[in-house]
Amino acid sequence: MMLINGEERTQLDATDRGLQYGDGLFETLAVRDGAPEHWERHLRRMHDGAQRLGIPVPDPQLLAEEAARVCHDGGRGVLKIILTRGAGGRGYRSPVQPTPTRVLSLHPWPDYPADHAEQGVRLRLCRTALGLNPALAGIKHLNRLEQVLARSEWDDADIAEGLMLDSDGRLVCGTMSNLFLVRDGELYTPELTRCGVEGTTRARVLETAADHGIRCHITDLQLDALWGADEVFVCNSIIGVWPARQVEQHSYTRGPVTRRCIQWLSATDGS
Amino acid sequence: MMLINGEERTQLDATDRGLQYGDGLFETLAVRDGAPEHWERHLRRMHDGAQRLGIPVPDPQLLAEEAARVCHDGGRGVLKIILTRGAGGRGYRSPVQPTPTRVLSLHPWPDYPADHAEQGVRLRLCRTALGLNPALAGIKHLNRLEQVLARSEWDDADIAEGLMLDSDGRLVCGTMSNLFLVRDGELYTPELTRCGVEGTTRARVLETAADHGIRCHITDLQLDALWGADEVFVCNSIIGVWPARQVEQHSYTRGPVTRRCIQWLSATDGS
Repeated sequence: MMLINGEERTQLDATDRGLQYGDGLFETLAVRDGAPEHWERHLRRMHDGAQRLGIPVPDPQLLAEEAARVCHDGGRGVLKIILTRGAGGRGYRSPVQPTPTRVLSLHPWPDYPADHAEQGVRLRLCRTALGLNPALAGIKHLNRLEQVLARSEWDDADIAEGLMLDSDGRLVCGTMSNLFLVRDGELYTPELTRCGVEGTTRARVLETAADHGIRCHITDLQLDALWGADEVFVCNSIIGVWPARQVEQHSYTRGPVTRRCIQWLSATDGS
Repeated sequence: MMLINGEERTQLDATDRGLQYGDGLFETLAVRDGAPEHWERHLRRMHDGAQRLGIPVPDPQLLAEEAARVCHDGGRGVLKIILTRGAGGRGYRSPVQPTPTRVLSLHPWPDYPADHAEQGVRLRLCRTALGLNPALAGIKHLNRLEQVLARSEWDDADIAEGLMLDSDGRLVCGTMSNLFLVRDGELYTPELTRCGVEGTTRARVLETAADHGIRCHITDLQLDALWGADEVFVCNSIIGVWPARQVEQHSYTRGPVTRRCIQWLSATDGS
């Protein structure tokens, strides 16, 4: 089911700036028993991103009602929310008073192998680099060609995710996930002030690990940090946490910090 | 009038990857007497961009027929062609055999002041920088948030265009145009191998100037080259050539090389 500005439709005006320029943002939420998980957290990120892009934010109550309508069939699924600046303006110039477009749609729960969290996954390094743009960094916006190109680099079903570097060679994230390294019992995750998306699951990992007394470093990370890590994992709202068992030719084990993070996250899922 | 995949419609499937990820490209053509100008050149650029992104290119004959239908009312206007990878795939991953979407639409000729080419325009420097991505550089793709943000930096109707630097401080282009500098009778325009769009009018300027014995340098340019230039102009398919009379606090005159470029371009307009 799809709702566009509250109406049950599947078609959108082709003049919408979301299509014309990628002028908008999105959220992807896990849905369990017909309810989107971590709703407040996703809404807050969308709100922050929209403010930075100057897109008016829809009434949260309205969005919640529409999400409930889209998800009401119950069961497991993925709720995607797209918010664009709507139509209008002149070329790249925004309209003075934008009328944003909201698109809410429910998708089947993806059939990722259930043992990924237990057995760990294979990761690769992508050649496609992320350009630096502090004005867009952190925002889950609609300009995703870099990720599309990176994801097109491999076809091997045994590789679950690709890691991306920025144009200066720093580690940033996976094509669809955030990245964590563990070294000497402490967590490291890339700074996202120049590129990358500030994932909601990344935030949950950081918060819950800090609550449990694990030191967390948000910092610039080079490849040598990856090769020297004791544990490596990627995360997002849908996959949860996937420990890496291999990145290129380097092997890793699903270590104690990763295991504890997985436990802590499952304990607060559905909240 | 708008044609989507050959049908007279204005709505497009919201699952289209053009909206979801900005996964596509576009062309903007001047239309005179009901005919798109420099059709072959625009089609070639779209073809090159589509090949680099792995998007199948529509039959040129079909596109030409659809363009003729959209423009058949005659008169002056702007033809916009959007080509996306269509719907499908799994997340960022493209479908194995994409079914591209083409959107052709005709827009009114913009009411830019007619004396811009004679009197010159005021330009500014934008704070929003362009991220570096060689894999996307040159392509007129749909990821245009950097341009949207840059264009939102000013509201002064007296400023016609903003110039953009890349994240390393090199001059690249205007928000909607390419940039040329003249020094000692020779042309300089930024290298576009890391970011920016390879404009069709930029290509025409380079070709026609070379034909007339003017040396053209495609090279990295810093701000000091701008401040030290004898003449400065920006160009695109719709505005043609706009000489700069002012960039920030620096004044310029509409010099002999710019005047000759304007003449040469008008001579081949409509071709």
